[in-house]
Amino acid sequence: MTPRPYNFSAGPAAMPAEVLQHAAGEMLDWQGSGMSVMEMSHRGQEFGRILEAAESDLRELLAVPDHFRILFMQGGGLAENAIVPLNLSRGAAVDFVITGSWSLKSLKEARRYAQARVAASNEADGHTSLPEPRTWQISEAPSYVHLCSNETINGIEVHELPDLKSLGCNAPLVIDFSSHVASRPVDWTRVGLAFGGAQKNLGPAGLTLVVVREDLIGHALPICPSAFDYKTVADNRSMYNTPPTYAIYMAGLTFQWLKRQVEGKHQGVAAMEARNMAKAALLYDFIDQSPFYENKVAPSCRSRMNVPFFLRDESRNEAFLSGAKAAGLLQLKGHKSVGGMRASLYNAMPLDGVQALVNYMRHFEMTQA
Amino acid sequence: MTPRPYNFSAGPAAMPAEVLQHAAGEMLDWQGSGMSVMEMSHRGQEFGRILEAAESDLRELLAVPDHFRILFMQGGGLAENAIVPLNLSRGAAVDFVITGSWSLKSLKEARRYAQARVAASNEADGHTSLPEPRTWQISEAPSYVHLCSNETINGIEVHELPDLKSLGCNAPLVIDFSSHVASRPVDWTRVGLAFGGAQKNLGPAGLTLVVVREDLIGHALPICPSAFDYKTVADNRSMYNTPPTYAIYMAGLTFQWLKRQVEGKHQGVAAMEARNMAKAALLYDFIDQSPFYENKVAPSCRSRMNVPFFLRDESRNEAFLSGAKAAGLLQLKGHKSVGGMRASLYNAMPLDGVQALVNYMRHFEMTQA
Repeated sequence: MTPRPYNFSAGPAAMPAEVLQHAAGEMLDWQGSGMSVMEMSHRGQEFGRILEAAESDLRELLAVPDHFRILFMQGGGLAENAIVPLNLSRGAAVDFVITGSWSLKSLKEARRYAQARVAASNEADGHTSLPEPRTWQISEAPSYVHLCSNETINGIEVHELPDLKSLGCNAPLVIDFSSHVASRPVDWTRVGLAFGGAQKNLGPAGLTLVVVREDLIGHALPICPSAFDYKTVADNRSMYNTPPTYAIYMAGLTFQWLKRQVEGKHQGVAAMEARNMAKAALLYDFIDQSPFYENKVAPSCRSRMNVPFFLRDESRNEAFLSGAKAAGLLQLKGHKSVGGMRASLYNAMPLDGVQALVNYMRHFEMTQA
Repeated sequence: MTPRPYNFSAGPAAMPAEVLQHAAGEMLDWQGSGMSVMEMSHRGQEFGRILEAAESDLRELLAVPDHFRILFMQGGGLAENAIVPLNLSRGAAVDFVITGSWSLKSLKEARRYAQARVAASNEADGHTSLPEPRTWQISEAPSYVHLCSNETINGIEVHELPDLKSLGCNAPLVIDFSSHVASRPVDWTRVGLAFGGAQKNLGPAGLTLVVVREDLIGHALPICPSAFDYKTVADNRSMYNTPPTYAIYMAGLTFQWLKRQVEGKHQGVAAMEARNMAKAALLYDFIDQSPFYENKVAPSCRSRMNVPFFLRDESRNEAFLSGAKAAGLLQLKGHKSVGGMRASLYNAMPLDGVQALVNYMRHFEMTQA
């Protein structure tokens, strides 16, 4: 196979080439069944095996405790912005920690269903820092506290999930982990619900992952559509409506790929974390030593997954991007709301890809001097 | 390529082998982009071209008039059961024509959002007939009238859409055309909104098609989640949330396949209709002449897409199914709520497949005598 370009898209994003090759190979006939996975009844035993394996592999990879349910849903993170308050708010107060574009969107949508208020925000510094948990102004008894644990657009990551109990709050923590799920372990003792679109680290767009503590299921508002009521979804093992079967299959292949990954003594998600730390350090260290490039996020909360950066002379942006494309480095343009560049370094991006990016950036800097 | 078995699944269902082969061939590199379609940003120009082509091909195939919008959504028909009343009911009365399992589910869900009532029903005869439009008891001024134009489980199809105006009703007709979309032309002069999951005749599960008259957009109840508000979806050209990009791509390939189909003087959906009529006639004629098999639906409203049938001696069901599988005839088991058998004859099922089924049924009947 000829080498593929390195794809830095923020999502939908690069997938492991092995996974794509495997899927292409069995597109017309899954394991002698005579059917493509796309052609199988979701109620048949063949797809049943695919779904079961995907769920149990994911549970193993993320070390999801038994008292959490894994739900495969549709609509992405933006739909969950409504679905979470429809299921968990009980129409009462909910608290939001604002860290960037995604938590702002979540807050806005939640206000349609609950008394959503801001417990902390980094808007004053342009979403470049992370408010310390001890400074959060948490309500008396919120139904939950919402935190986006990785802000894809702003490049901010929560490296240690807050312990709400230690802050005197018994409410569950809800995390939007769309853009760093499976890139590092999750401390489930600190989480009540985690949700994320699959299209960054897990598989193709069109699949939403929800991991929810069992006691939080069954409290949906009466206006919650049945297809989005966690109880209906859980009771029907993610098959109340026809699930996005092929996306689940692709995610399942990705889970198997993740389980095979080894880095030193680490395996699976721990191996990914080691690699992701090395990848991020390589890029941030290069940017920080350069007078030509800049990342504006406080070092303590920089995202390992999404690295927004700027050319100090923005008139060179177009030349940077077209040179990158010619060098086989794709989809580096920053989000329109932030500008500049963004390199997303999800699990499927190898260290070699980040090295190739750094080499290109160094070369571009030198030729522009 | 070795011949593939014939797959009679009710959905997710058989897809054209050509489409699957094409997709497998460009799984790792779409048209020299260096990316799988799964790996493309939905905001990039590559996916932009895929989405635009899918929409315009579908508009051409179904002859969708300019004053209708085509929306690509998620959640399937079951989610639309809530999304339609959230968008169209304005909290007022809505009328339902009950023809089988799917319209019953739609009614139940709509009751959460609107004053949904039954204008007509075939429950008395076990969902085997179609109430004549002139007998429908339509409300004074309903927000819409809901009709499932093909009942997948019961095998009932509406062969001529009702003209509500001629019944003295100015409300829009909403049709759930999930299981016969693109199998025949649609008379859009009689329709206000049509919705359907893609997984029967259009592509993989995880994509929902909504075709809606422009004047019906923009009236969602305040509790409608943004991701499911037709106005948000339309204003963002189906990209408010990340769309199910790969499913749209596969549907787009299916649309191109449909455009290439020719049958006599007919092309595209008209060609499919001619073929679908021939396929259905072959199977129904065989069943009707046999003392061994039975279809209970009134001939005037039998579905061309889904043919439920019974062995008069049901003790032979298991033998029938295992023999069918051995003969390369897959997924013939009937829906659990109806029992017996069901052969779904969607666009991707060739006449040869139906002939193979009839041959097998004849052979099975003879050997059991």
